Amino acid sequence: MAINLMSSRRSIRAYKLDPVPIEKVVRVLEAGRLAPSGANTQPWVYIVVDDGALKCEIRKRCEEADSVFHEEAPDWLKNWLRKEGITTNKRFLTDAPFLVVVAGHVKAPYWLESTWISASYMILLAEEEGLGTLTYTPGDTAVLNKLLGLPPDYRVVVILPIGFPAEKPLPERRPRKPLKHIAFHNRYGIDLL
Amino acid sequence: MAINLMSSRRSIRAYKLDPVPIEKVVRVLEAGRLAPSGANTQPWVYIVVDDGALKCEIRKRCEEADSVFHEEAPDWLKNWLRKEGITTNKRFLTDAPFLVVVAGHVKAPYWLESTWISASYMILLAEEEGLGTLTYTPGDTAVLNKLLGLPPDYRVVVILPIGFPAEKPLPERRPRKPLKHIAFHNRYGIDLL
Repeated sequence: MAINLMSSRRSIRAYKLDPVPIEKVVRVLEAGRLAPSGANTQPWVYIVVDDGALKCEIRKRCEEADSVFHEEAPDWLKNWLRKEGITTNKRFLTDAPFLVVVAGHVKAPYWLESTWISASYMILLAEEEGLGTLTYTPGDTAVLNKLLGLPPDYRVVVILPIGFPAEKPLPERRPRKPLKHIAFHNRYGIDLL
Repeated sequence: MAINLMSSRRSIRAYKLDPVPIEKVVRVLEAGRLAPSGANTQPWVYIVVDDGALKCEIRKRCEEADSVFHEEAPDWLKNWLRKEGITTNKRFLTDAPFLVVVAGHVKAPYWLESTWISASYMILLAEEEGLGTLTYTPGDTAVLNKLLGLPPDYRVVVILPIGFPAEKPLPERRPRKPLKHIAFHNRYGIDLL
């Protein structure tokens, strides 16, 4: 049942260094490929990165960009990041055996929305494969175009590290809001349930 | 298996008028609720619309905004829309027994990305429930805020009509690109497979 995947899946920041069979990664990509998109343009490409030096370079550039994000974050977000132990250290970008860099073609209609549907399909399939992942949104995409040889019409929207999880976050650690707080009937604020 | 849902699911534009049990809609919303989000802010709200007059008004305003989109579309998109029989007539907004209007809180980090993950979870769960849906992106969201009483910090990102399908599009009708055309190894253009 899809709901079980959705319910159990949590973002993974700690990865085992154990190799991941490429077939598993390909099944994740297959899921992304099947997503719907504006005018069926399928504006996404996936760059599967397993080159160690390239992963190091990607991590370095992402960490540089993230330090700006962390500095400029509002206080509540700074507090949340501190509480969760999330720093600008993005070791998952080098620990995970694979990075799936997901880019979208910015001239396609609804390219960003479509590419996120594709990424959503992939994170669910990773869960089904027993793999951990995380939707990491890099702060500087221009540098990634250069590192990955991406033509200028493509923009990286998310990096999905792929590996076997070295942590098992309990669903309770990242609780979701009850439906009655977020679902309304015909008008905002009117109870559905 | 999630891959079967992803593979069989297609966007539905023709809906039966038959009522849909509310429990089915609630299970769809439950899926959306479980999505990951930036800093776990869960910036989404869902307005479930089944009021006939309200659906008519939403449809009317969406069709008005869509006529601009259709007029301004580039030639290739105009051709695609014509080939697919997609016009500014959005009768699915009144035919479907339910509309799930999905809005995001624009001040949350990665609010748009997060809200699309939530919508992606919902379209897969709708498929599992035997329901049809479609990711319809309205052209004018300000008017929807007014019609639905949404506070100004919320913006509608997608409307999901929910109903039993009155069409069964073959997967072949909306083929997806083969993986070898979209998946690369360490660098754009380098074969993965």
